[in-house]
Order: sequence, then C-alpha cells, then structure tokens
Amino acid sequence: MAMETPNHTQTVAGWAAHNSSGKIVPYTFKRRENGVNDVTIKVMYCGICHTDLHHVKNDWGITMYPVVPGHEITGVITKIGNNVKNFKVGDRVGVGCLAASCLECEFCKSSQENYCDQIQFTYNGIFWDGSVTYGGYSQMLVADHRYVVRVPDNLPMDAAAPLLCAGITVFSPMKDSQLLESPGKKVGIVGLGGLGHVAVKMAKAFGHHVTVISTSPSKEKEAKQRLGADDFIVSTNTEQMQRGKRTLDVILDTVSAKHSLGPILELLKVNGTLVVVGAPDKPIDLPSFPLIFGKRAVKGSMTGGMKETQEMMDVCGKHNITCDIEVIKPDQINEALDRLSKNDVRYRFVIDIAGRSKL
Amino acid sequence: MAMETPNHTQTVAGWAAHNSSGKIVPYTFKRRENGVNDVTIKVMYCGICHTDLHHVKNDWGITMYPVVPGHEITGVITKIGNNVKNFKVGDRVGVGCLAASCLECEFCKSSQENYCDQIQFTYNGIFWDGSVTYGGYSQMLVADHRYVVRVPDNLPMDAAAPLLCAGITVFSPMKDSQLLESPGKKVGIVGLGGLGHVAVKMAKAFGHHVTVISTSPSKEKEAKQRLGADDFIVSTNTEQMQRGKRTLDVILDTVSAKHSLGPILELLKVNGTLVVVGAPDKPIDLPSFPLIFGKRAVKGSMTGGMKETQEMMDVCGKHNITCDIEVIKPDQINEALDRLSKNDVRYRFVIDIAGRSKL
Repeated sequence: MAMETPNHTQTVAGWAAHNSSGKIVPYTFKRRENGVNDVTIKVMYCGICHTDLHHVKNDWGITMYPVVPGHEITGVITKIGNNVKNFKVGDRVGVGCLAASCLECEFCKSSQENYCDQIQFTYNGIFWDGSVTYGGYSQMLVADHRYVVRVPDNLPMDAAAPLLCAGITVFSPMKDSQLLESPGKKVGIVGLGGLGHVAVKMAKAFGHHVTVISTSPSKEKEAKQRLGADDFIVSTNTEQMQRGKRTLDVILDTVSAKHSLGPILELLKVNGTLVVVGAPDKPIDLPSFPLIFGKRAVKGSMTGGMKETQEMMDVCGKHNITCDIEVIKPDQINEALDRLSKNDVRYRFVIDIAGRSKL
Repeated sequence: MAMETPNHTQTVAGWAAHNSSGKIVPYTFKRRENGVNDVTIKVMYCGICHTDLHHVKNDWGITMYPVVPGHEITGVITKIGNNVKNFKVGDRVGVGCLAASCLECEFCKSSQENYCDQIQFTYNGIFWDGSVTYGGYSQMLVADHRYVVRVPDNLPMDAAAPLLCAGITVFSPMKDSQLLESPGKKVGIVGLGGLGHVAVKMAKAFGHHVTVISTSPSKEKEAKQRLGADDFIVSTNTEQMQRGKRTLDVILDTVSAKHSLGPILELLKVNGTLVVVGAPDKPIDLPSFPLIFGKRAVKGSMTGGMKETQEMMDVCGKHNITCDIEVIKPDQINEALDRLSKNDVRYRFVIDIAGRSKL
C-alpha cells in the first residue's frame, strides 16, 4: 500500500503514533501538491476525539501505522485549486471525518456522503490517489474542497473545532428526528462527555426539555447550571430510573463503553427512538422486551453529510454554540489521550497546532 | 390474588399446566358470567404459540399456576351481552393476545391497545374483576367484545386461528413499515417458523420481493416452491451473506433464540429497518458498527391493536392467507409442545378443541 505518491512533495510537520503503544511523537511527512479541486489549509486547532484513542492503540485492528490522527480541524485557507469557486485564501474553514467518497452513488448525490460505501476518512483512509490519509495533528492539510466547510465568523476557532466531529455526530440524528423544527420534545442525552455536552446545548437551543442520563451524580450541577439541562437522572439510581419510565421522545446515547440498552429504553415513550452515536467495541446488550413492549426503535447514526455539516456550523453560529474545551500544546497530546481514556476532561481537548504562529 | 370471583359461575373444561414441568393436564375451572360487554365463545380451535411454551415452563418467571394457555383462538359466539351491537350469536370470531386494557389512555383511544401500560393478556393476566385470565386451551371463553374480531367467511377456522397471534405479530410491523401500500420493496424474513412462514405469504401478497434468511438450507425448496419466496440466504454461509449486503429495505426477525443482529443488519440498505418480533429471553447482541455505518434501525413490535387485528383478518380473507398447520387433538398437546421446542412443526400446531362437537 503506497503511503505517498510522486505528487506528494510538500513536507509537513505533524504528530503520529507508530505502534499500538499509542505513543504520539513528532513526525515529518509529505502531503500532495494542492490539486485543482483542493484547498490547502494552515491548521490552527484540532480536537482530540475518542476515535483517535481507538486508532492510535489499534483497538479496532484497522490502524495503518504511522497514523496521524485528528478529524476535528479548524484552520485558514492558504491556497485554492483552479476548480474551487466557493472558497478563497484567508477563509476560516473546518474539516471533519470525511476525505473522499465516490461522488456518484445515490448517497453522494444527495449529500449523504457519510453513507457512501466507498467513503474514506480524514486519517487512516485511502485517498483517490492511493495514498494513506493523515489527519489534523499536523501543521498543514490538503483537502478536497467538497469535504470542507466554513466556520461562522462569530465562532472561535478553538472551541469550534470539535463541532466537526462531536457536533455533527449529535446534530445529524437530531435533524433526522425532526428536533430542529419541532420544539417542546422531551430529549434524553446519555453520557455527558465530548458528544453529550454539545448535544445538551443543541437540544436546549432547539427548544426542548433536556434530561441528562449519567452514571456520575457529580455531573448534575454542571449539567443543569452550566449547560442548561432541565433534568438529570443517575442511571444507577433505580428509583430515578423508575420515575423516568415512558417520559422521553428521543434519546441520544453517546456512551462508547459497552452497556445494556434495556433500562435506557424503558425511559422512552411508546414509539420513541434511541439513537446510538457512541461506538462501543463490543456488541451492545439489547433486551427484546423493552424494545417490543414499547414499539421502540434503536437507530444508528454516523457523523453527517457535507451539506448537513455546513448547516450544523451555521446553526451553531446562529445560536453561538461551541464546545467546552481544554486547550493543550502539541507536546501534551500523550497526557491528554491518557486523561481522555479516563474521561478526565471537561469536555474536549483541543490541540493548539499553530501556537504562536496563529493567523 | 383472586383466581375467581363470586361471579365466576360457569364451569369449563380445559387444559392447564400446574408447575414448571410444563406438563399439560385436563383442568376444570370457572369462567365469569357473560357480562353486558361480553361475548361467550364456543372455542373450536386454538393455535400453539411459542409463548405458550415459555409460560407453561415459567421461563420468564411470571407464570401464575395453574395456567391455561392459548391466545390463537377461533370459535363461534353463543351469547352476547346487552351492550354488544357488533356481534350476534353464531358469528365466527377470533380472540388473540388481549383480554383487557385501560380504555382511556392515548393508546387505547387510538386502538393501539397493545401498547397500553395496563394491558392484560388472554391468559396469565389479571382481568378488570381481579380474576386471573385463562386462555384458549378450553372449550369455552368469555371475552369482552372490544377484544374480539371477525373471521372472514372464506377462511377455515383451523388455519385461521394462528393469525390471531402469529399473523398480527408480523402484519403490524409490515403496516408500520408502509409495506401494505408500496409494493416492490425488498423484504427479508429471518426464521421460517410459525411467524416467518405467514410473513412470507403476506409480503408476497403485498407485492414485495421476499428473501428468507434461515440457518436451515433444507428449507430453501419449500420457502420458494410452497410459500413463494423469491430468494433464500443461508445465514451461516458467509459467501451468500456477503452477496446479500445492502440489498434489503426491511427485515422481520422472527427468531426467538438468542442471536447476533450484526450479520443480519449488514443485509439492510442504508436507512433500512429490522423489526424484532421474536422475543429472545436473553439480550440480543447488537454490534454498533453495522447500525451506525448504515444508519439502520432496530425496532420492536408487539402483536397489534384491535382495529389493526380486524384489518389483518380482512386482508388475509381478501388474499386467502392462512397458516400452514398440523391439527392435533387435546391429548396430544404435550407431544406438540415438545416438538415445538425442537422446531419440529411445519408451521403451527392447532388444537382441535371442539372435536366432534364442532358447530
């Protein structure tokens, strides 16, 4: 498998893991020249997603080392290809999970590129030219303009970065569940982490009654006071879970650890929907009774299409929604990954890639 | 808990299990007088559902012994209460899973009584008067007329009996998935048993391309030749499963043994829906990746509402759909339950309750 092509002439400084120890070290590599459909981006910030942790440690057995993680990227365009009409040099932009798709299937044609069966990701993917993709833990990125979105002027580039994955991952199922246009629903958010905290902000901005379901009683205060949640259920408290039965219309389950959906499903009204957006490695336990007796649905959702991603950025701009972040320097990535594995972050690490050389 | 009330004056001959051995023996008990809203039914046939097996053996830990099973009941009305206007003596009718519900909640009011949270079943339930309900393994039944449906004239009473549970259980999710009004879909049926075989007949009658997914290669011939299935996939054949990826719009999973949904979900197109209608005792394994990557949904469905059950009977009358059955005498119930536990029936046992005294 070719890591690079003869067209890969631009030297870039980045950070990579070279084996399943997951240890991140400085790594210099090549990127392709800016093609006719490409934009070159000076990376300013890159969020650290739980997926990065899975990839650096090869938890899913699919990592191609060296891996340069990062798919929550914000930066500024420094070069555009001849075919690129919708961006110009100096534009504030973001790149998320997608690097390429077939452009021809029904999903690509309807801007559901995320469900194209030839989808390639921003890192650990194979680009059209056969090269392995490298992500945003790097100072510069060359991206096809069809997978780039604008960052609204009022959003700070650091706190906006995680919107490119965490944000769209929760926005897409909310849109799919008609939560954007029909306020007043009862929405549950399971897990108050990188995805969950932004889901709470969005659901509140869209006018819903939001219940956070968490194993950590200690998060109740911040869920309500800082994020605006209306209610809080400790999932290990059987009395609270019992009281919550049949009360919610839609639940977003953002937990990526293995867990049973049974007690959570019971919180849904009849005909309610639980959307799984966390991606546990091991199969989830799905008891049939709460599913069947409540005519409930468990749905999956993976990031979003490009049109939808731009819509999400614009909606966040309108409502001034960003992520709560802890900004780190590149030499703190290993420490951050370690803390992330222990859920010790409120709520997303963002790497200050450009440092003092920020535009 | 009162088994009977002072109003339980009618002596009935039936068949019951008295303990978790599950052995069925003749059992004489009392039923209530025919009330103003009741109809009295001379039971002719009763299907043997897999649920009966779970109840007689107390697999779910909820059995109130002695239990008179049976919720696939056909018979003839012999008496009606003063408030009953829609039935008359001599009518051919059926009774399924429901004996009572609250009549006041949003679900009862919209004839989704099956999702009322005070639902009581035809056997092993608690009727409004506090008495335990006894099912169709008995020569006579008193039922509230709101939970009784008509059997179309052209359907034989024996082969129509399993429609009251097996039939409505697969019809309801088909209707919910818009399969009645939009022919030409690709429909998968997992498991070719009591539920599966009637699901194949219905899906074909509604104009769909039907693929049976089964662990038994030996069922291919009958699935295609006798039931009219278009395609057959052996679920243990990885090549066939691979070829079937992303081909189906809707799948009905009728298997009540524990199994993983992963490989089956892969057969669905993006946005496809798998409906679980079997009720495995143990949690189903739900791998998150095929759910998430395909934006797929796993839904539950339990029997159907009363209006829907009548519609199902009428649709079956119109298309001449009945179940493939093996008729047994009451003294063969134990043998039948034993064979059912080994899936040794094509496809439903029906007890000839009335025997020679049939109307």
